[in-house]
Amino acid sequence: MRKSGFFLALALSLVTATPVVAQMDVEDQINTRQSAFTFAAWNMGKIKSQAIDGDVAYNEQQMLAAANAIASVANSGLGALFGPGTAMDKNDNTKLKPEFFDKPEKAREVAIGFAQAATKLQEVAANGGDKAALAAQFSEVGKSCKACHDEFRAE
Amino acid sequence: MRKSGFFLALALSLVTATPVVAQMDVEDQINTRQSAFTFAAWNMGKIKSQAIDGDVAYNEQQMLAAANAIASVANSGLGALFGPGTAMDKNDNTKLKPEFFDKPEKAREVAIGFAQAATKLQEVAANGGDKAALAAQFSEVGKSCKACHDEFRAE
Repeated sequence: MRKSGFFLALALSLVTATPVVAQMDVEDQINTRQSAFTFAAWNMGKIKSQAIDGDVAYNEQQMLAAANAIASVANSGLGALFGPGTAMDKNDNTKLKPEFFDKPEKAREVAIGFAQAATKLQEVAANGGDKAALAAQFSEVGKSCKACHDEFRAE
Repeated sequence: MRKSGFFLALALSLVTATPVVAQMDVEDQINTRQSAFTFAAWNMGKIKSQAIDGDVAYNEQQMLAAANAIASVANSGLGALFGPGTAMDKNDNTKLKPEFFDKPEKAREVAIGFAQAATKLQEVAANGGDKAALAAQFSEVGKSCKACHDEFRAE
């Protein structure tokens, strides 16, 4: 059911602007993508607390739920929330650099990187919940976040 | 891997305030829970567009991704974001009624209702993606949202 190839295909199809829902206005796109990332970050924080920092007791079920959440964000078709006119040159409430729209290949690459890393995180969490393996893949997801931030997010 | 019983147990454990992450401040709890619901609502909108209204072409993979997203929110341990002091009597930016804290049994009931309905939605989407079945379960998820709004959300 959760084949990486499937999610990769999904990520690809969504990054390339297949319609998913009736077009949202700019404000809604920005608010919704920020919400998606906030939700993902909360769940990344749970894994950090339990698998890296150890300040909360490790709980396999909670780690799987967190990984499911992060993967569901990464595979949700975020590309639909990065439509024309949603960068910081035209809006005060986003840090998206306008260069995003000049580099569709790079945008696709970082989106696929996030989807692949998060789907693998979900697989690791579902596959026995080994703490060290989860921590290692958490680091890979973090790198995939950073790859996009470095390229397309203003300081 | 995705047994309803598992998710029910998870929902229960999280509603009853098992620590998941180091305690967040009130502002973060409100912002994060609103983000989670915004992300879920966006994905509910996709299913509405494709399986109910039909204004966007039906796509099984997109419906599965949307159902995964909604289920991941419902099973993410939202109870941790409804801590003491996060209702509208003490904050301007939430519609959570203070009664929420007087009715823990009811709060648990609506949280479990959402988790069960959303997990079933995910199962329906994963199990062949039948449009009518998805539409029917979408309606059940909507009812579970309304059950909480009616009880605990101000107009």
